[in-house]
Amino acid sequence: MRIGIYPGSFDPLTYGHLDIIERALKVCDKLVVGILCNSSKKEFFSFPERKEIMEYCCKKYDNLEVVSFGGLLSDFCRENSIDCIIRGLRAVSDFEYEITLASINRRLAPEVETIFLTARDENLFVSSSIVREVARYDGDISTLVPSYVAEKLKAKIL
Amino acid sequence: MRIGIYPGSFDPLTYGHLDIIERALKVCDKLVVGILCNSSKKEFFSFPERKEIMEYCCKKYDNLEVVSFGGLLSDFCRENSIDCIIRGLRAVSDFEYEITLASINRRLAPEVETIFLTARDENLFVSSSIVREVARYDGDISTLVPSYVAEKLKAKIL
Amino acid sequence: MRIGIYPGSFDPLTYGHLDIIERALKVCDKLVVGILCNSSKKEFFSFPERKEIMEYCCKKYDNLEVVSFGGLLSDFCRENSIDCIIRGLRAVSDFEYEITLASINRRLAPEVETIFLTARDENLFVSSSIVREVARYDGDISTLVPSYVAEKLKAKIL
Amino acid sequence: MRIGIYPGSFDPLTYGHLDIIERALKVCDKLVVGILCNSSKKEFFSFPERKEIMEYCCKKYDNLEVVSFGGLLSDFCRENSIDCIIRGLRAVSDFEYEITLASINRRLAPEVETIFLTARDENLFVSSSIVREVARYDGDISTLVPSYVAEKLKAKIL
Amino acid sequence: MRIGIYPGSFDPLTYGHLDIIERALKVCDKLVVGILCNSSKKEFFSFPERKEIMEYCCKKYDNLEVVSFGGLLSDFCRENSIDCIIRGLRAVSDFEYEITLASINRRLAPEVETIFLTARDENLFVSSSIVREVARYDGDISTLVPSYVAEKLKAKIL
Amino acid sequence: MRIGIYPGSFDPLTYGHLDIIERALKVCDKLVVGILCNSSKKEFFSFPERKEIMEYCCKKYDNLEVVSFGGLLSDFCRENSIDCIIRGLRAVSDFEYEITLASINRRLAPEVETIFLTARDENLFVSSSIVREVARYDGDISTLVPSYVAEKLKAKIL
Repeated sequence: MRIGIYPGSFDPLTYGHLDIIERALKVCDKLVVGILCNSSKKEFFSFPERKEIMEYCCKKYDNLEVVSFGGLLSDFCRENSIDCIIRGLRAVSDFEYEITLASINRRLAPEVETIFLTARDENLFVSSSIVREVARYDGDISTLVPSYVAEKLKAKIL
Repeated sequence: MRIGIYPGSFDPLTYGHLDIIERALKVCDKLVVGILCNSSKKEFFSFPERKEIMEYCCKKYDNLEVVSFGGLLSDFCRENSIDCIIRGLRAVSDFEYEITLASINRRLAPEVETIFLTARDENLFVSSSIVREVARYDGDISTLVPSYVAEKLKAKIL
Repeated sequence: MRIGIYPGSFDPLTYGHLDIIERALKVCDKLVVGILCNSSKKEFFSFPERKEIMEYCCKKYDNLEVVSFGGLLSDFCRENSIDCIIRGLRAVSDFEYEITLASINRRLAPEVETIFLTARDENLFVSSSIVREVARYDGDISTLVPSYVAEKLKAKIL
Repeated sequence: MRIGIYPGSFDPLTYGHLDIIERALKVCDKLVVGILCNSSKKEFFSFPERKEIMEYCCKKYDNLEVVSFGGLLSDFCRENSIDCIIRGLRAVSDFEYEITLASINRRLAPEVETIFLTARDENLFVSSSIVREVARYDGDISTLVPSYVAEKLKAKIL
Repeated sequence: MRIGIYPGSFDPLTYGHLDIIERALKVCDKLVVGILCNSSKKEFFSFPERKEIMEYCCKKYDNLEVVSFGGLLSDFCRENSIDCIIRGLRAVSDFEYEITLASINRRLAPEVETIFLTARDENLFVSSSIVREVARYDGDISTLVPSYVAEKLKAKIL
Repeated sequence: MRIGIYPGSFDPLTYGHLDIIERALKVCDKLVVGILCNSSKKEFFSFPERKEIMEYCCKKYDNLEVVSFGGLLSDFCRENSIDCIIRGLRAVSDFEYEITLASINRRLAPEVETIFLTARDENLFVSSSIVREVARYDGDISTLVPSYVAEKLKAKIL
């Protein structure tokens, strides 16, 4: 059985993330969505909120588990027998950052493979920070996030 | 009549910005320079100072108006019957960010077109952050900003 | 009146080109589509074929003219009182090439402005060379080119 | 069972390719190495030579098959029940080209996923064209290709 | 005598930095390592700690001097008769930033040349921020920094 | 004594090349300009013509020698006791290609360092292929190449 992890902040979850999750489930037999909770970045949704949203939006998938994730990704992979790390690729600057992370993770855990997937064209430019910015001014985010996320965002901002 | 908006922080205004403004005026019948005033970024010049500097340095242009600008750019465009957004392109990382913004603005206001222009070669590497950095240590910024801006910077730093 | 030129090989015309043409018509009062006919590149459709296809697919636009175009773009602009060059931006390598062309054209004809536009997300990755490649093996190109172009391609390849 | 295809010219096979193959075998249950034989590019090794070299260098892998591959990759995937396309990522220009191919292949065969892997640091800059260039002048290619390939190259060039 | 300066934060010193230093010493007759101490960035090691680490790790080099460095690099070069600025190049985003800095420094001190060097493949993805992140969670950094730096990091974090 | 080589096709020599040569002479004690003559690329000027042009335009430099250069650059460096390879950096795609070449040359001759320099802003977008294209249609190339080169180009094209 091939187990993958898709790590991220998911603050908030977007259609771009869901696009990658859908593809990752075709590549892995089981997918662990690892929500980063030790980040020094100021968070918008709390970790329990982000976990609840992810679980709600992914409830149709059997072979998916949502976990919190802190410390080194390579340590987490080893402790949980994870075979591969799933990353979504968007832009050039993404690519450089991602190739750096993959290189470091390979040093720390050579047996864990990093796999890059790309979202479909209409999701390539969707990011959590753009979503937060648009939501902040009550812009239409219906093509960027699921309606469940849109409601939570509205409730949070008001 | 084609109305364009050139949005930015202009903190401070540089020859790079003025280069783009000059070109934008050839593309639009009227240009609105929109100074961002809701940014969470720490500002160097206050909004009134930046507005005064912009108006002083652009006083020779009849069909140019300087406004403050907050909230979503797409909302502002709709409320003010603006036809196109003008953006200056510099580097690769710029490009990725700009293409993302253009994609999102197109979702929010499909009738507003984003137009990219490039400054002439000698202005391609001029940025407000570089100007602030050089000015802070009393370096020569005479090729980077108009003398009016240079004086204001000196007065501010002393 | 603002006259723009959209130069290219259009071999064949794709939805990506039509996307840019539609946008260019909002930026210019009149658009000249300039089909390159002096290229040393081996052509797929002859110049008259490409002109006929372009005219057919753009017949709904009043303020658009299709011309052949050889020699230096800057000379053509001057001889035809063209105010701006329209270019579609796709990828990073595109961007570098385009910024170089814009820099050279500015030296040759400083009064002509180069304007960059981006196609909508689903057309960002469409290129003539991909279309030819897919058509060669009878793949489905219905999301890449108008049906009129698809028919011409099929007829050419058989 | 998850079947992947790793398409390429492999002219010649390098340590960079073998690096990706090794990783792909961890991601797929079976790997098809598809050697492009309909390319208009002038070839260095003939298709049978490239196939023989690939089979020799990969003979230790049970779940790997070497095939010739012409026409559209998406058609080949459908006819052979292939689930995913494996691509190695190297540089930025690579990345742009690859994201374009992935976008087109997704249109032609949405059920086939494109998976990107990266070679380890020391293989990131190895390419077939560099190998041919260095071999042409009898340079040391021992860190770029397996010794079996090096011998074949020498024999070919003399 | 050709004097070069290699400016940086070195917080902490990595094998990537040492790789560039080794190469810079072949290009210059004397190398000044300039540790930035006026940065507004929160520092991990204090300036004296970084200086001590650098001096310890570079003690084998005769023609190398470690200095603190504040203000404008171009001023420092002029005051100290420095002929060239040494910069290590890693990724694309680096490149854009570096070419901007080089352009500005050339305006401020045209007689000082900026020289770019690249680290060997295995050091291309090593950065101080990655090292701090890995060290924070007690990951293995033995391939990223000298053992002396690793010890200092451990002592600091505990 | 530090000897550098600046390899290239120089077909034709541009202000961009001369800009790099001027800088290289500050970094090396002696500069060898190596004109590639084994390229499979169709040449515009013959090798003797390019050599004559280079020697004419560089006659003011004492410590510069123009040579023909074939085979592997690393071999040439070893046979001629050359310490470093000089390369001009322009754009992103350049950068990727250059970093690849530097990596390969380091494998072949680890003792030879590759040094990257950048031309001043107004020369950053000048390339031999653009010059040939503009010259072909009798465009103004006076800001791109020395007048001596411009004359030779005109004579060649007529």
